[in-house]
Amino acid sequence: VSAAVGDLERLVAIEEIKQLKARYFRTLDDHDWDAYVAAFTEDAVMDLTEEMARHAGAAVDAGTDPVSKGRQAIRRFIAGALDGSVSVHEGHMPIIEITGPDTARGTWSLHDWVSFPDSQFHGYGHYHEEYRKVDGKWLISFMSISRIRIAWETGSPAATA
Amino acid sequence: VSAAVGDLERLVAIEEIKQLKARYFRTLDDHDWDAYVAAFTEDAVMDLTEEMARHAGAAVDAGTDPVSKGRQAIRRFIAGALDGSVSVHEGHMPIIEITGPDTARGTWSLHDWVSFPDSQFHGYGHYHEEYRKVDGKWLISFMSISRIRIAWETGSPAATA
Amino acid sequence: VSAAVGDLERLVAIEEIKQLKARYFRTLDDHDWDAYVAAFTEDAVMDLTEEMARHAGAAVDAGTDPVSKGRQAIRRFIAGALDGSVSVHEGHMPIIEITGPDTARGTWSLHDWVSFPDSQFHGYGHYHEEYRKVDGKWLISFMSISRIRIAWETGSPAATA
Repeated sequence: VSAAVGDLERLVAIEEIKQLKARYFRTLDDHDWDAYVAAFTEDAVMDLTEEMARHAGAAVDAGTDPVSKGRQAIRRFIAGALDGSVSVHEGHMPIIEITGPDTARGTWSLHDWVSFPDSQFHGYGHYHEEYRKVDGKWLISFMSISRIRIAWETGSPAATA
Repeated sequence: VSAAVGDLERLVAIEEIKQLKARYFRTLDDHDWDAYVAAFTEDAVMDLTEEMARHAGAAVDAGTDPVSKGRQAIRRFIAGALDGSVSVHEGHMPIIEITGPDTARGTWSLHDWVSFPDSQFHGYGHYHEEYRKVDGKWLISFMSISRIRIAWETGSPAATA
Repeated sequence: VSAAVGDLERLVAIEEIKQLKARYFRTLDDHDWDAYVAAFTEDAVMDLTEEMARHAGAAVDAGTDPVSKGRQAIRRFIAGALDGSVSVHEGHMPIIEITGPDTARGTWSLHDWVSFPDSQFHGYGHYHEEYRKVDGKWLISFMSISRIRIAWETGSPAATA
């Protein structure tokens, strides 16, 4: 794609970004917020405006700013949304484009299943992301989510061992 | 696999085919049929004989030919099957084999969740595909689907935001 | 990661291990146990101690040793657990690390949906694996599973075509 990046360097970067996003998912569902925010650049922006509109009144207080700037704001938002839940997030079929030696963008298909004490949902959509290489490590510098559908169920979730 | 294709060229082709199939899925669930058929060669064949037998009487008229030849026939078939639905399709765990400089074949694990106004199903199975490189771009030249299971539910789907 | 393995060789190994695990899943859900055990080294160890604790009293007799050593023990365990079921297993978001010319380790996110005659479950968790290259072919030499959640449903599963 970029004339400045050779095929091998490009494939190495794509695999590193896939593993970065895989660690993002592991730490997200472990609710290990220190490790989670380490996947982002210090100045990363997480824009969940569409996400908030879909989940209105659910997990996150209606007054919360849907755009988080920087690791601490991202941590606060995600911990507020997921603490107390059992969560499963999966990312599929990445399209990652290396746009320069230290920049990339990508999309992932998302499936998430999140259970709160008295409700749960299955959601489907896409991540839209930008990446930056900082000190030799790829990190997420921008993230937003669009949704195909979210199916909520109220009442106790199925018995879970 | 093929002595005529080196390791780097092979890995580049595999990644390009993964991204081709990812675009296939995005455009499929966007119901963007112009972009969808652009993932196929002009003379592509889509053989959904087993698929039709499984879905008999459901989405597609019983008289429809399960083998579509060419982009326009593929478009007509898929639009007939999915217009009016909310669809989620996911492809997993590709095994892509580069069989020559311009030819490849592959399989993908499939999970789809399709909701019609009064019923929905979760399906699992596999894509069996062939690819051809045309003017420097990999495209799907053959596609069929085999199924492990399809679970239908009638009645209104769960509330969806 | 390892200074002894170049970038191209590392990417080739990672792709080969992804395809190895894809074949693992195909043969697992085909219940084709000869092909299934061929994905393991002769001396492979499959440690399902945590898995057994989660499924206690379900698919596998309580007295079964949760640690299987060697292909025949692995085959006996898996056939005992899955014969008579309809199973779907998916592996997502691999993090594969090549630790030497003939050794690697990796994790995969797992989603499985298994239906027995009078009950079924959806499970989520992770594979923790080691790989070894034997006669030029990557194989699984160690496998264990940790779980995020398992949701059982009793009664007849949804109608399945």
